[in-house]
Amino acid sequence: MAVSFTITYKDESTGARLGLLYTPHGTVETPVFMPVGTQATVKTMTPEEVRDIGGRMILSNTYHLYLRPGHELIREAGGLHRFMHWDGPILTDSGGFQVFSLGPLRKVSEEGVAFRSHIDGSEHFFSPEKAMEVQMALGSDIAMAFDECAPYPCSREYALAATERTTRWARRCRTAHDREDQGLFGIVQGGTFKDLRERSARELVELDFPGYAIGGLSVGEPKQLMYEVLDYTVPLLPEEKPRYLMGVGSPDCLVEGVLRGIDMFDCVLPTRIARNGTALTRQGRLVVRNAEYARDFSPLEPDCDCYACRNYTRAYIRHLIKANEILGIRLTTIHNLYFIMKLMEEIRAAVRQGRMLQFRDDFLRKYQGD
Amino acid sequence: MAVSFTITYKDESTGARLGLLYTPHGTVETPVFMPVGTQATVKTMTPEEVRDIGGRMILSNTYHLYLRPGHELIREAGGLHRFMHWDGPILTDSGGFQVFSLGPLRKVSEEGVAFRSHIDGSEHFFSPEKAMEVQMALGSDIAMAFDECAPYPCSREYALAATERTTRWARRCRTAHDREDQGLFGIVQGGTFKDLRERSARELVELDFPGYAIGGLSVGEPKQLMYEVLDYTVPLLPEEKPRYLMGVGSPDCLVEGVLRGIDMFDCVLPTRIARNGTALTRQGRLVVRNAEYARDFSPLEPDCDCYACRNYTRAYIRHLIKANEILGIRLTTIHNLYFIMKLMEEIRAAVRQGRMLQFRDDFLRKYQGD
Repeated sequence: MAVSFTITYKDESTGARLGLLYTPHGTVETPVFMPVGTQATVKTMTPEEVRDIGGRMILSNTYHLYLRPGHELIREAGGLHRFMHWDGPILTDSGGFQVFSLGPLRKVSEEGVAFRSHIDGSEHFFSPEKAMEVQMALGSDIAMAFDECAPYPCSREYALAATERTTRWARRCRTAHDREDQGLFGIVQGGTFKDLRERSARELVELDFPGYAIGGLSVGEPKQLMYEVLDYTVPLLPEEKPRYLMGVGSPDCLVEGVLRGIDMFDCVLPTRIARNGTALTRQGRLVVRNAEYARDFSPLEPDCDCYACRNYTRAYIRHLIKANEILGIRLTTIHNLYFIMKLMEEIRAAVRQGRMLQFRDDFLRKYQGD
Repeated sequence: MAVSFTITYKDESTGARLGLLYTPHGTVETPVFMPVGTQATVKTMTPEEVRDIGGRMILSNTYHLYLRPGHELIREAGGLHRFMHWDGPILTDSGGFQVFSLGPLRKVSEEGVAFRSHIDGSEHFFSPEKAMEVQMALGSDIAMAFDECAPYPCSREYALAATERTTRWARRCRTAHDREDQGLFGIVQGGTFKDLRERSARELVELDFPGYAIGGLSVGEPKQLMYEVLDYTVPLLPEEKPRYLMGVGSPDCLVEGVLRGIDMFDCVLPTRIARNGTALTRQGRLVVRNAEYARDFSPLEPDCDCYACRNYTRAYIRHLIKANEILGIRLTTIHNLYFIMKLMEEIRAAVRQGRMLQFRDDFLRKYQGD
């Protein structure tokens, strides 16, 4: 089996657990946060820098790579790892979330989704089979099933149809997928409807995927509602398989997700807000481009050991960002990803030491505003 | 004396020479090329990366730093070196070239130049005294005198006035400059008029600067004309002082400049064309963003040892640049500066071995199109 999972520790008082995720490109400690490399690059960073800040596994986007430079080109290059010079594990999403987000540019049928490229308006068609073909060409370690992600809020009727279709499409993905050095994960949908989540989980678990994602969350619903959905959805998943909460990565949600038994996360948040001139700190977000930091000669976060904090001041980083200098967003990106990686490390230590609830309280007391 | 110079080798058959330039932040082998860090950053790079590709001394722009973030802020930060985390030598220009380039946004008088900021339109005034004040606040190792750079082409009358003013302003700079850990270089003007170059050189040499720049070249004149001006201007400068050809840095001009006795160069060309998707190679420029490289899985330059060429293909770099990914221009920038630094290293070796004329011929036979 291409991808497998071992639980190394279970916290008795919460749902949290530690594990090892085995992939063709190496083993990763969980819970893990995957930096996002949408277009075959974690924005602004080299792979060595991603590794230096603690990145062990990344996510890349099938929709984007299919459109540009094209999955066949990446196959010719020797696969995504070689193309982008990253030799660690890669998870690719299925493209489903992106094509459903295209709104008026797409048309859904049972067969799949017809859509127009956001780049040049050209016409394309994604089906479960196509999503498998593309991901097999990319050669990621973990591929995701092609699903229909319902928006929030949405009617029960809509969510039901999306849930049923997600199961039918998951079966087609299972049939179409035949790359042996790649694991295929299923995605549980069902919106914020408990019975639909139960149904989706039951049907997908029958298909026996080596791992399961919880999709359709972090799409605009209140955080408390997301936690509630997790509370009843996670227990529906097989305990021995890895659980992946898609698109989630704000610091407070990482803490809450781990407490509920999530093993894998990805999110553009730390890198996206970095490019916006915002740094993550233990006290919450710091908008370093604000005028108040013009003459602040302290680092982004005083106790941080990242490259940016060891060598540069808020005043300098603010100057770079105001002057549109690339080094500015390189530094905030390094800091933010380091912050998240360090947080995951501390979370794993807290789980191991049975003090995850205390960690959550301590962390959230200081961290505000997300 | 803050800055001094020793000639370590003189080529008998050409004007080329090797030297050591001593500055408060270290000693640099000459001939040297200085990467440009206009806004207190060599665009896209960290200081460690600049050093890794062989950068030993950089140039930064007084005009830009005066406007943003302001020289007083940089002084408060502990000076430019500390502000930008670069501990090697820095040369700052005087701002003269930039304010004269502002065209309708500036007004020249004997006292100085009134101009409007290209950023926000605010009004400012630069004089020789102001240029010294700003550069002393920045704390660069080498400051440049505030000069008037005549455009090309220009009338003899205009060039004469600019030459005379440059001398008067050089005297005022000499008087105003009193930072002991900073060397002040004079700038020879005179356009493409031999007698004006002679006059400018004579008057500036009387002021006994520790180094001399040749200004007013590489402003649009044909290369042959620039070489001609160098042929008669360089011998007018004191042999024992470093000679700096401002704004010059295309590979062929570096070779020709060294042959004529130039010790220092700076130019935005390698970094600017990099951001445009163009790589320097021994065969000339390679526009890696062109469609012909879409499936080219060879490095930018096959025999190059730079980080970009060791790890990435033309196809990948092209993809990044087409997709507006920052890593793309980081890689072309690294390659181009490495190319120039390696070229300077080879030039120094060729001078040392007395085969500089042969090197020029070999290099120019392959290198075309600049």
